[in-house]
Amino acid sequence: MIDSIRERTERPLAQRDATHDPARKSWVASANTSETDFPIQNLPLGVFSTDGTDPRCGVAIGDAVLDLSAAFAAGLVTHRAVTESSLAALMAQGRAASAALRAEVSALLTQGSPAQAQADALLVPMAAARMHLPATIRNFSDFMVSYDHCLRSGRRRDPENPLPPAFRQLPVAYHSRASSVRVSGEAVIRPHGQWRRQDGTMQFGPTEAMDYELEMAIWIAGDNALGAPVPMSAAPDRIFGYGLLNDWSVRDVQRWEMPPLGPFLGKSVSTSVSPWIVTAEALAPFEVPAPVQDPPALPHLDSPWNRSNGALSVRMTAAILTARMRAEGMEPFLLTDTQFADMYWTAATMVAHHTSNGCNLLSGDLLGSGTVSGPEEIARACLAEINQTGAVTLPTGETRRWIEDGDEIVFRGRAEAPGAVPIGFGECRGVLQPAIAWPA
Amino acid sequence: MIDSIRERTERPLAQRDATHDPARKSWVASANTSETDFPIQNLPLGVFSTDGTDPRCGVAIGDAVLDLSAAFAAGLVTHRAVTESSLAALMAQGRAASAALRAEVSALLTQGSPAQAQADALLVPMAAARMHLPATIRNFSDFMVSYDHCLRSGRRRDPENPLPPAFRQLPVAYHSRASSVRVSGEAVIRPHGQWRRQDGTMQFGPTEAMDYELEMAIWIAGDNALGAPVPMSAAPDRIFGYGLLNDWSVRDVQRWEMPPLGPFLGKSVSTSVSPWIVTAEALAPFEVPAPVQDPPALPHLDSPWNRSNGALSVRMTAAILTARMRAEGMEPFLLTDTQFADMYWTAATMVAHHTSNGCNLLSGDLLGSGTVSGPEEIARACLAEINQTGAVTLPTGETRRWIEDGDEIVFRGRAEAPGAVPIGFGECRGVLQPAIAWPA
Repeated sequence: MIDSIRERTERPLAQRDATHDPARKSWVASANTSETDFPIQNLPLGVFSTDGTDPRCGVAIGDAVLDLSAAFAAGLVTHRAVTESSLAALMAQGRAASAALRAEVSALLTQGSPAQAQADALLVPMAAARMHLPATIRNFSDFMVSYDHCLRSGRRRDPENPLPPAFRQLPVAYHSRASSVRVSGEAVIRPHGQWRRQDGTMQFGPTEAMDYELEMAIWIAGDNALGAPVPMSAAPDRIFGYGLLNDWSVRDVQRWEMPPLGPFLGKSVSTSVSPWIVTAEALAPFEVPAPVQDPPALPHLDSPWNRSNGALSVRMTAAILTARMRAEGMEPFLLTDTQFADMYWTAATMVAHHTSNGCNLLSGDLLGSGTVSGPEEIARACLAEINQTGAVTLPTGETRRWIEDGDEIVFRGRAEAPGAVPIGFGECRGVLQPAIAWPA
Repeated sequence: MIDSIRERTERPLAQRDATHDPARKSWVASANTSETDFPIQNLPLGVFSTDGTDPRCGVAIGDAVLDLSAAFAAGLVTHRAVTESSLAALMAQGRAASAALRAEVSALLTQGSPAQAQADALLVPMAAARMHLPATIRNFSDFMVSYDHCLRSGRRRDPENPLPPAFRQLPVAYHSRASSVRVSGEAVIRPHGQWRRQDGTMQFGPTEAMDYELEMAIWIAGDNALGAPVPMSAAPDRIFGYGLLNDWSVRDVQRWEMPPLGPFLGKSVSTSVSPWIVTAEALAPFEVPAPVQDPPALPHLDSPWNRSNGALSVRMTAAILTARMRAEGMEPFLLTDTQFADMYWTAATMVAHHTSNGCNLLSGDLLGSGTVSGPEEIARACLAEINQTGAVTLPTGETRRWIEDGDEIVFRGRAEAPGAVPIGFGECRGVLQPAIAWPA
């Protein structure tokens, strides 16, 4: 069964334009190294501030940020939307605007640009930039499109029928909480919650089962009116870009509260997103065929483009850094190494399904892919899957079934394809803080 | 079992102030009739416009609307927040602000007010007012706190264990969709959706099972920071006011998509809310003891105030008006007549539970109570419950298992208590329009 999901035709490279040319170099030297997440082929968008300045839009290039608001004021880019304190205005203008901006910024930062001196003065060292949420989240929907995640988590509930009944017919999803989405780096507080212990007694107190879920964030461009579904032919153009998302999960609470209306407080403690949005344009060289589906998707969730280009080849990792590891100067320990292209449903099908009842998806809305687990042992993308085979032993000798106070979870992502310059997603990080004293 | 839920201590009237005085009359004559929803003891808040004017805040009084923005400009009320085009700014200021505004407006509209002539010039006939959403919905969470609704709908899934496992331990809820909330009067389009037919074949097309759910809308005042739970002692003050809410439901889609993550497209087609928010202050005389809970709620969901005053005595009705009934000049036919005070969990427990994990509830957030069903036959508050005993036969001879194209669903609500002037909620209406042709 897993084999049929992973079966694909040959992966062709999507059409590229000059902004993807592997020979293109930037006059920002740090963007030309093989280690950087942010070569000139990437140009992800974010919102940043520096000490004493207001948040504004920027582009990551090597180890610097180009101030787009200042670049507009200097006449170097022409999209007034980048002068806002969030990317919402640009997202509202749709994909044509972000593609045109990409072309302008790529030319500006390429070696030999006549405006190099002017633009160089508008660079901010990334170490001096404080990152903000790319946009205020208006709506957040979280999907569950990993076959292997469903298989492993479903076996606990029903060993005979682990997959949700509708899993092969539609991208399963639930509405999640917009107000608690936070940018990478903001702490997460161990929540209180209620659950039933195995002996049947009720418990209310700090969770004993805090988990991460390694997910892809999908940011929406443009708006459809309520009552106007987005067909598959138009769905790809509703995707502004991608980032990393940690869907912090409270497993004891979640398991107790879920039947029949789904997760609620188990998911609304906090959701962390990476600050840089890798645009759909930047990811064109990493488009690969969608997994073969069995049975075939119904027509409203199918398109030739989706079959040939609907998936994205992005390697995603999760690692843990405990307080002791940090004190001993150690690197984060790898927990998960997985591949976004393995998801059973693509981002375009999420958009088409979500709007198929006429629901209005708004610019700046956030979709989560759900836990990006694959069939390999190392591709278990949350501790609930990992600890099914026992606790993790860390290089310090510490063991983990769940996240402990002081632990930091670090996500990274990197798009890779033959003949293309790899591009990265930066990081999505968060440290778990101890529970508060319950208010009197 | 039902008896224990409905057992209460004697229902005392909550403390009232002068604004609740049954002897108080308005110089607006239509506010002094026994039929009006909007006597001077009510003073609900909403957002309205008239032909060629912008949306602004108003108060309903009899068959008129007092323009609060103009009243501020004339120096008749002192809260600048009412000059906004939504109630969000007033909601953000918390309950003290809305209580002070109520006292001002009550004095202004009472017989003998020295400012009567000035205020009279600021009245707009309600028939000329177009109503808008009270505020942009930032987050919408929908609860399920009716014992009788859970019992009836759960029996279909599991006759032996119809209640959700956590039902008696916490107010069960799910995140719902904010972008598709609309004000009363806006049409609802029969949605397309996917489900599995009884013969096992998959179906995608216009739903064959469109339903209403008669719910109470609960509007949130003030904000709590992420990570800062609202204890029961502070929860009542986070409730700005109440309205009617139709949680339009797509039953074939919902049943197919729900396991295990809960409802998604079955609930995001549209949600209708009544335009007038009856404030928590106005409802003080209608506070009654919460139902006795068995087992007792855990301490974080319990308070003396909640036990004595946490429930609200509001009679709620749903009626249907088919196209043929409309053509024949008939009145809407009563489908549901139910009582909000019967809910197993109160609005204060919803706030305390929702924030118990640190989730930030924001001013303008919307909570739905879930279907307000009671034990009586007429208190079945959705067609999925009603049609368990067969189709409804209407006075025209038409029958209904589900809502048909052209049918209008009409909700009304009225708070009643001994010795108090009854106050109404106005209406929440919506007509079901035919499905669109699926986009090519």
